[in-house]
Amino acid sequence: MSNKKIIMTKKPIGVPEESNFKLIDEGSIDLKANEVRLQTLWLSLDPYMRGAMNRIREGETMVGELIGKVVESKSEIISEGAIVLSKAGWQTSPIVNENDIKIVDPRISPLSLALGAIGMPGLTAYFGLTKIGDPKPGETVVVSAGSGAVGSVVGQISKKIGCKVVGIAGSDKKVEYMTSELGFDHGINYKNSDWTENLSKSTESGVDIYFDNVGGIISDEVIDRINENARVLICGQISQYNNSGVELGPRNLKQFLFKRAKLEGFMVYTYEDQYKEGLDFLINMLDQNELKFKETVIEEIENAPHAFSKLFTGENFGKLVIKVHD
Amino acid sequence: MSNKKIIMTKKPIGVPEESNFKLIDEGSIDLKANEVRLQTLWLSLDPYMRGAMNRIREGETMVGELIGKVVESKSEIISEGAIVLSKAGWQTSPIVNENDIKIVDPRISPLSLALGAIGMPGLTAYFGLTKIGDPKPGETVVVSAGSGAVGSVVGQISKKIGCKVVGIAGSDKKVEYMTSELGFDHGINYKNSDWTENLSKSTESGVDIYFDNVGGIISDEVIDRINENARVLICGQISQYNNSGVELGPRNLKQFLFKRAKLEGFMVYTYEDQYKEGLDFLINMLDQNELKFKETVIEEIENAPHAFSKLFTGENFGKLVIKVHD
Repeated sequence: MSNKKIIMTKKPIGVPEESNFKLIDEGSIDLKANEVRLQTLWLSLDPYMRGAMNRIREGETMVGELIGKVVESKSEIISEGAIVLSKAGWQTSPIVNENDIKIVDPRISPLSLALGAIGMPGLTAYFGLTKIGDPKPGETVVVSAGSGAVGSVVGQISKKIGCKVVGIAGSDKKVEYMTSELGFDHGINYKNSDWTENLSKSTESGVDIYFDNVGGIISDEVIDRINENARVLICGQISQYNNSGVELGPRNLKQFLFKRAKLEGFMVYTYEDQYKEGLDFLINMLDQNELKFKETVIEEIENAPHAFSKLFTGENFGKLVIKVHD
Repeated sequence: MSNKKIIMTKKPIGVPEESNFKLIDEGSIDLKANEVRLQTLWLSLDPYMRGAMNRIREGETMVGELIGKVVESKSEIISEGAIVLSKAGWQTSPIVNENDIKIVDPRISPLSLALGAIGMPGLTAYFGLTKIGDPKPGETVVVSAGSGAVGSVVGQISKKIGCKVVGIAGSDKKVEYMTSELGFDHGINYKNSDWTENLSKSTESGVDIYFDNVGGIISDEVIDRINENARVLICGQISQYNNSGVELGPRNLKQFLFKRAKLEGFMVYTYEDQYKEGLDFLINMLDQNELKFKETVIEEIENAPHAFSKLFTGENFGKLVIKVHD
């Protein structure tokens, strides 16, 4: 079984382009003890992978999570046919060690949800919001990239808890999705000229929690509206990842002083030993029909580089996955 | 006994000037029940008072803490001769209610320390550093305005705990004071062209705690050097108080994400019910000769407006007090 994989040929400057990647076929390699061969079903594309490109070397396989089926096994703990989560990156038939994969919870359906609303993005939303945001009923939660893989779950958990939720996104279609489908109280299109007025109107009693996925000018505006004892979570800063220099912009850290507010950066891996709690919570929401999600599915691994660049232009809508095999 | 007081005649734009204030003599007013008349001994000038000028109305007495002696009393709980702390503002003989003053701890000497190293600034250092910063021996603490009323105490408590301390200030004399007198490990003059290189050299193992009194470009440089799980305290943002607009500058909140770091704004009043703990700690340091302090004393209340403006130019050195009466 031949493995096709995509390597990073050249570190990107700014937004990654197709020319930063190359597809190669490495043929079929034999398994060693404790290894399994996967057939990739779904490959996940996420903004954090842009940062990873600064850390890997040219010629290395591009990083990423995937859902795969075990098609050959030299492991005594994982058998053929198992459905697993792996961080093997952009490969069609990777060989992985039994210790580097996790069995996907059989309650998760459709399977691709294990990469999105009930995977890393959903867990990011759950742990960030509940452990750092500490939301209370009646509080106002603002989430940037509110229709995205993380933001959509942040908003829905917040609504479940009884918060008022304001989502920010970059198109009227996304705003419509947040308010009509996800049940957010307000949606703001930051590309409209009156967006800051809309933000003020929809956060009349101030902002208690800001779940920030984007950074930049959007964060400045939200932080200007925080309440006493507000909590600001730095989950992503997608507006800043492709900067080659530092962005010029207003600075309003004094808001944190005047409002005795907190800001905390976090990564979901900090909570790795508590994942079961998060999975149970999210699966329960799904069962109760309280967890809506939207996926953009791209066919064929060859299309991953082009699709990945779309993550940074705002063109993408919902969770972006590559369907590699049925 | 006639009371002279200084009122704010006009809200300042940018740095406050003498023309924003006016001295008036309101003559002698009779005491009511539960009131006492003070003779002001020491008046405190602090950066936070700039923010207060945005909140008071034109014609009102300028705010500020003072140490006074009770010279007349219609209170059953506070007698003539008592030395008290009051927030009556810039007045020579204010009348205050018995509930609005506090007896100064008799262990504090000289008295002016109750406005500085063992007063609000010292308590700000103590509570901010210990309750939010949570310093551990061996960690690196950076403090901006390190020779100031708050910063000098932050550094000395940090040294006592066993931290490495780097102070930032605006003159070679202040740097010399921090390293020779206060025992800081390094001092950085941010007005020297090589200051960022010096900062890098003196924080080779990164920054674990940044106690920020100034904001602006200094904070950007320090935040770029924070370690995993760093704690950033926003205590003051003196570089920003006189901005009429928003300052343009780099934004690096993504550092908080990449380093899973925290930032928190705080005010000492949050810890008001724990002040005794802080006072005991600081008085003990003084008794052990571990608490050094520097005061700039200005004579006559008439000179308060001019002295106050100096707080924002970096010309002032140490704690600034007005000696109103012997």
